[in-house]
Amino acid sequence: MGSKARDSARVLASLDPATKNEALFAMAGELDARVEPILAANAGDMQDARDEGISGSLLDRLALSADRVGVIANGLRKVAGLPDPIGSLTGGWVLTNGIHLQRIRVPLGVVAVIYEARPNVTADAAGLCFKSGNAAILRGSSYTLRSNNAIADALRDALEALGLPADAVQLMQDTSREGATALMQAKDWIDLLVPRGGPGLIAAIEELATVPFVIDGAGNCHVYVDASADLEMAADIAFNAKTHRPGVCNAAEKLLVHGDVAAEFLPVIAERLVSFGVELRGDAETRAVLPGIALATEDDWPTEYLDLIMAIKVVPSLDAALDHIRAYSTGHTEAIVTGDLMAADRFVRETDSAVVMVNASTRFTDGEEFGFGAEIGISTQKLHVRGPMGLEALTTEKYVLHGKGQIRS
Amino acid sequence: MGSKARDSARVLASLDPATKNEALFAMAGELDARVEPILAANAGDMQDARDEGISGSLLDRLALSADRVGVIANGLRKVAGLPDPIGSLTGGWVLTNGIHLQRIRVPLGVVAVIYEARPNVTADAAGLCFKSGNAAILRGSSYTLRSNNAIADALRDALEALGLPADAVQLMQDTSREGATALMQAKDWIDLLVPRGGPGLIAAIEELATVPFVIDGAGNCHVYVDASADLEMAADIAFNAKTHRPGVCNAAEKLLVHGDVAAEFLPVIAERLVSFGVELRGDAETRAVLPGIALATEDDWPTEYLDLIMAIKVVPSLDAALDHIRAYSTGHTEAIVTGDLMAADRFVRETDSAVVMVNASTRFTDGEEFGFGAEIGISTQKLHVRGPMGLEALTTEKYVLHGKGQIRS
Repeated sequence: MGSKARDSARVLASLDPATKNEALFAMAGELDARVEPILAANAGDMQDARDEGISGSLLDRLALSADRVGVIANGLRKVAGLPDPIGSLTGGWVLTNGIHLQRIRVPLGVVAVIYEARPNVTADAAGLCFKSGNAAILRGSSYTLRSNNAIADALRDALEALGLPADAVQLMQDTSREGATALMQAKDWIDLLVPRGGPGLIAAIEELATVPFVIDGAGNCHVYVDASADLEMAADIAFNAKTHRPGVCNAAEKLLVHGDVAAEFLPVIAERLVSFGVELRGDAETRAVLPGIALATEDDWPTEYLDLIMAIKVVPSLDAALDHIRAYSTGHTEAIVTGDLMAADRFVRETDSAVVMVNASTRFTDGEEFGFGAEIGISTQKLHVRGPMGLEALTTEKYVLHGKGQIRS
Repeated sequence: MGSKARDSARVLASLDPATKNEALFAMAGELDARVEPILAANAGDMQDARDEGISGSLLDRLALSADRVGVIANGLRKVAGLPDPIGSLTGGWVLTNGIHLQRIRVPLGVVAVIYEARPNVTADAAGLCFKSGNAAILRGSSYTLRSNNAIADALRDALEALGLPADAVQLMQDTSREGATALMQAKDWIDLLVPRGGPGLIAAIEELATVPFVIDGAGNCHVYVDASADLEMAADIAFNAKTHRPGVCNAAEKLLVHGDVAAEFLPVIAERLVSFGVELRGDAETRAVLPGIALATEDDWPTEYLDLIMAIKVVPSLDAALDHIRAYSTGHTEAIVTGDLMAADRFVRETDSAVVMVNASTRFTDGEEFGFGAEIGISTQKLHVRGPMGLEALTTEKYVLHGKGQIRS
């Protein structure tokens, strides 16, 4: 697979944008044309999953419908409409000796994606890799192998019909743990590995991978309500950050409240959160105001709940809030609600996270919201790319120097 | 050391450029003031090295002199004069909901540097890390521990005298292999590891490191002389690329010559190279023109000699040259000499290396030549940074979003 991907990547690297966009539309058309076989394959996956006793939200993530296939196809058309990052100049100047230097955005080569459950990732990831000129090696879960194959076959056939290499999109048939490990260690063949899955997958990659990877890590996101905050705004932001979609990485897990406003603010936000079904846990000072809630323990502060749970701490100062965030943040997103310019500036400067919000919900850490048009994940690492990852995250740069015979003296 | 580095990094991150530059000048002044103790420490290192039977170029790399210390001090003053990368905006736009987004360059935090022999790296690396707002953990070799300590003490004392954290520059006293491994695996404390050393060090990092690192890898650089090349220019470039400094990574190791010009070009370049003391090895077609040289074997093509050796291959076409480079390049630098625009364009597009030269010597792949003012290495990896690494390679980015209470709906 690696060698086929490399050969395809060479072809992809020199395709012009129009050809790539035409292919993305053809892939979308092929998905639309094959709704029935795709749904039949999915029905087989679903039946097996039920037979294995899978139910609830995981089963829901496996399920496709005609509507969902239509959304997946339209996702490819949307990617076609995004600006093509390949070939764009990211810098250029003339060396003192007259050599003209250009720095040019180029594809990485071969991008591997390991993902869980959702079959839509097969098309989403293939589309983003293709648009950025990369061959894709996709490794989904065993539960969706038939659905993934039905989707990947449609994409591959669409490429082939246009005379383009079908192996630009390859789906691994080996969905074993050993297969995933082999992919994580295929150093000669993979230029970037992108995981889309839970903490178990991330931990396995951190332990086993020898290929370069980008970590789409945990979000133990904080909202800090400063003494100078507009408390109505603070309640709206904290409520939205916690409840809008509690299962995703940019949801807030912790609420820090300045002592000066705790007595006034806590009852208001607690009522809204509890009414929505959020379980609150608080430190001693929080419980002095909200005696009905459980005591937060040392286990709470570093934890990403991904659930309707929020831990609250009263802090005596901005410094104490910053210290707490430094100690427990996963470096994803933190928000301050404040009317104080100096407090906002210090929070922005002294918080070492991918994204810092001033008077806005943590939920805005998102490729679509940032205007990237599509997102392959959110990086919590500092190298290569940090924060929401769009098409540019799937590229690297190359220096091209044009001389007229210059030699070094 | 990790915890002290983290604490120092927090202070460094918010220093303004003038304060950092003042500190760099103070460090330089302290080195100048301590030439005698530094040379005394170095004399001890040199004596031990001689006692251990070390001689030749390694001993030369250990040696300091009053002049060399002066050069090291001036290097710090030069870094002070470079533009400060921290705080610069790398992007900014307004989201559809009115949130103002800024992408800002920030320090990585703690940068570790593992290096061999040359004590000047102690000051060079410390200066680049400091200027980019990072705390440095430096791990030199046992041969230069006394020299490195004398230099690091001068830098630390200069910082302390200004009320800045001395632990912004820390030198590891443990120069054992186990110490290096511990540093490579200090995941909670190190944001970036930069190796400055030979293939053994790089291989150890690729095998053992769990911290993020940048590989300053091998340069098996090619010069391809196209059928349309100005042969005088081609000889100048090939000669310069091979002989100007044969022991460095941007020196050319391989010469590919188009068959149409082989008979005319090979005798000319061979005479110049052999006169300079270069050992030539050639494929069968090269030896048909240059019968006196040895036959190149399959071992030659992937090898970085770092020596006065060059292997030559006659290729029937640009495609054959590109195929050979794809098969054996380490992705550092390749050069084409040509008068044919289409050949130049294809070579640029289809060569997957950090730097591609058209009608210029491979020796120009260099941070100083590129105008970065200083270089911490040359990356042959595709993630984070590719090619010569200046101050920006020691930074990451952070998104700052300013709202007025926006929540996600």
